[in-house]
Amino acid sequence: MNEKREKTKAVVLISGGMDSCVTTAIAAGTYDIAAFHASYGQRTEQRELQCFHAIADHFGATNRLAVSLDYFPAIGGSSLIDPSLTVHKADLTSREIPNTYVPFRNAHFLSIATSWAEVLGAQKIFIGAVWEDSSGYPDCRPEYYQAFNRVIRAGTRPSTEITIETPLIHLSKRDIVEKGVELHAPFDLTWSCYQGSDVACGVCDSCALRLRAFQQANVDDPIPYANKPEYARI
Amino acid sequence: MNEKREKTKAVVLISGGMDSCVTTAIAAGTYDIAAFHASYGQRTEQRELQCFHAIADHFGATNRLAVSLDYFPAIGGSSLIDPSLTVHKADLTSREIPNTYVPFRNAHFLSIATSWAEVLGAQKIFIGAVWEDSSGYPDCRPEYYQAFNRVIRAGTRPSTEITIETPLIHLSKRDIVEKGVELHAPFDLTWSCYQGSDVACGVCDSCALRLRAFQQANVDDPIPYANKPEYARI
Repeated sequence: MNEKREKTKAVVLISGGMDSCVTTAIAAGTYDIAAFHASYGQRTEQRELQCFHAIADHFGATNRLAVSLDYFPAIGGSSLIDPSLTVHKADLTSREIPNTYVPFRNAHFLSIATSWAEVLGAQKIFIGAVWEDSSGYPDCRPEYYQAFNRVIRAGTRPSTEITIETPLIHLSKRDIVEKGVELHAPFDLTWSCYQGSDVACGVCDSCALRLRAFQQANVDDPIPYANKPEYARI
Repeated sequence: MNEKREKTKAVVLISGGMDSCVTTAIAAGTYDIAAFHASYGQRTEQRELQCFHAIADHFGATNRLAVSLDYFPAIGGSSLIDPSLTVHKADLTSREIPNTYVPFRNAHFLSIATSWAEVLGAQKIFIGAVWEDSSGYPDCRPEYYQAFNRVIRAGTRPSTEITIETPLIHLSKRDIVEKGVELHAPFDLTWSCYQGSDVACGVCDSCALRLRAFQQANVDDPIPYANKPEYARI
């Protein structure tokens, strides 16, 4: 018999960065991908949206939802969405929450993903949150996702079964690069810089975490940088 | 000494219906109101937005945020936001979830309210969810709000203290009308009908629950209806 079983659907949050790209590669191994992306007035939203579509194309996503949360700048509170605030240079030795933290942002994404998953009949939501080796945003903590899973159980139809999967949450950024290489994740289609849209700055928190990871893994990062400081030995 | 203490801020979700109006009256007794409203492509969104502003004016809200979640119709799954589905006549004897349920909708509202509360420094979020005497939407259950409070604790800055308050959740709709009368809540500024924007239909789930409540409380409902069936004796 050569029966083809239909894969279960999974909604995958694809920001366009390296973590969501590797997460998509992991999810695509088992699930039929429904690709979700949100713009929220962040500085590099156009570039991230391009990367989203490129990654969704690469993995052959059958369903796709890209939304624009244009109310975020009205809420403010973060240098990512308020041009009057400066995106600081990375300080990888600090565990202070940097001013790039967008208050409670991931709950917006997870809420939309859950609504969509309930309508699609998807049973999983994948998000590439990283805790151990991250900027320390509170909405990347493992207990945050455990709590959100309880909200989904309580707040959806009794017949709905959706759980959030965070396959990278305990990995180091170096491990994530290595996992991506192993799964042939298309890092060339990704974008991580908080500031630049054509050439990555190399010095914001997001660039610093990414560059250090590639340097530690001895892998060439295929995207263009204005500066490539040596972070590996920090 | 005649020192004036500044009131603590509370974000209040004001849909424009009777429940959120009474909730606002309760919150305004103790807190400085930050009024929040979301349109999401529902049939009566313009009327509800007008009611939101009228209620926010009535209570002298110092902060105001009205957002448009125009991605909701793309998600679909509810007769409130999909014109190809019919809003059924109420069946107040059933505990089936009606097709007006918008999948996981309240999480979107609560997520935005939490982000805004964190930026404003508000410590409470008020929502007029009703469970005992409602349409049975899962995101109106008490345990849903308890779970969401845990998500807020886990997903915001360590110094942030925000909790959701649901003062109506265990009240009957009749109790809510009586509480509103006691607090002089401006029911004339509210709208509940799922279908009509000028004259309420009187027969959708939301009209039926509202009319029955006013009839049971022996209070005149001040808004106009196309039909006013007698629900009290059901």
